[in-house]
Amino acid sequence: MQKIEHIAIAVKSLDTSVPLYEKLLGTLCYKKEQVVSENVNTAFFRSGETKIELLESTTDSGVIARFIERKGEGLHHIAFAVDNIESEIHRLKQEGFEFISEAPKRGADNKLICFLHPKHTTGVLIELCQEV
Amino acid sequence: MQKIEHIAIAVKSLDTSVPLYEKLLGTLCYKKEQVVSENVNTAFFRSGETKIELLESTTDSGVIARFIERKGEGLHHIAFAVDNIESEIHRLKQEGFEFISEAPKRGADNKLICFLHPKHTTGVLIELCQEV
Repeated sequence: MQKIEHIAIAVKSLDTSVPLYEKLLGTLCYKKEQVVSENVNTAFFRSGETKIELLESTTDSGVIARFIERKGEGLHHIAFAVDNIESEIHRLKQEGFEFISEAPKRGADNKLICFLHPKHTTGVLIELCQEV
Repeated sequence: MQKIEHIAIAVKSLDTSVPLYEKLLGTLCYKKEQVVSENVNTAFFRSGETKIELLESTTDSGVIARFIERKGEGLHHIAFAVDNIESEIHRLKQEGFEFISEAPKRGADNKLICFLHPKHTTGVLIELCQEV
């Protein structure tokens, strides 16, 4: 894994959280994007070589809405940039890790993404992502 | 804020989690350190310009033990590197943010650290840290 590509934070509302994170980080949100397949609106901030990604649910029953219902707003997942997502999935499966979905899919930023199952990663939801 | 200095993960046991994160990240833990003032043992991994820090409680009543009791193992906080922690605290207070402790203290890695109160940061515990 090359580096941390982004850290994702589940929020109730981008309208209130984007100005808050702009003040906090001292930098402007540089992109907003809807990811229809994940039922989320996203907002991105740069922090060094990494990004902060805010996630707002577009539906009452989406994964982010359910996360906030269960745990409240807060840290949702970490994403690691990888050169070759298929070979990294293979390596990690050999090491005994499991994945939430079998095959990579398209995520925000037009990347190929895949999530590890948090039961093998001390409760941390971890995403792999590859530039395409 | 310059960059994400580290991401901290609360774990029950470094003995089991260090080998697990070595497999996951494909890199060896390069340092372990006890931080007596915080009642934690820490273990560090590099990931690009950022670090992953595992936190294990040294007492049953420590902040990490209580976090795990309440929420389970998982993402605990994000730390941002700053040039001058005093001026960053001043800037953030002017913006309406609050801090858990009034003055910076010594943390792991011999840094000056300070935590923002998560009630103003969408539930995310955020640390500022300055090299000294």
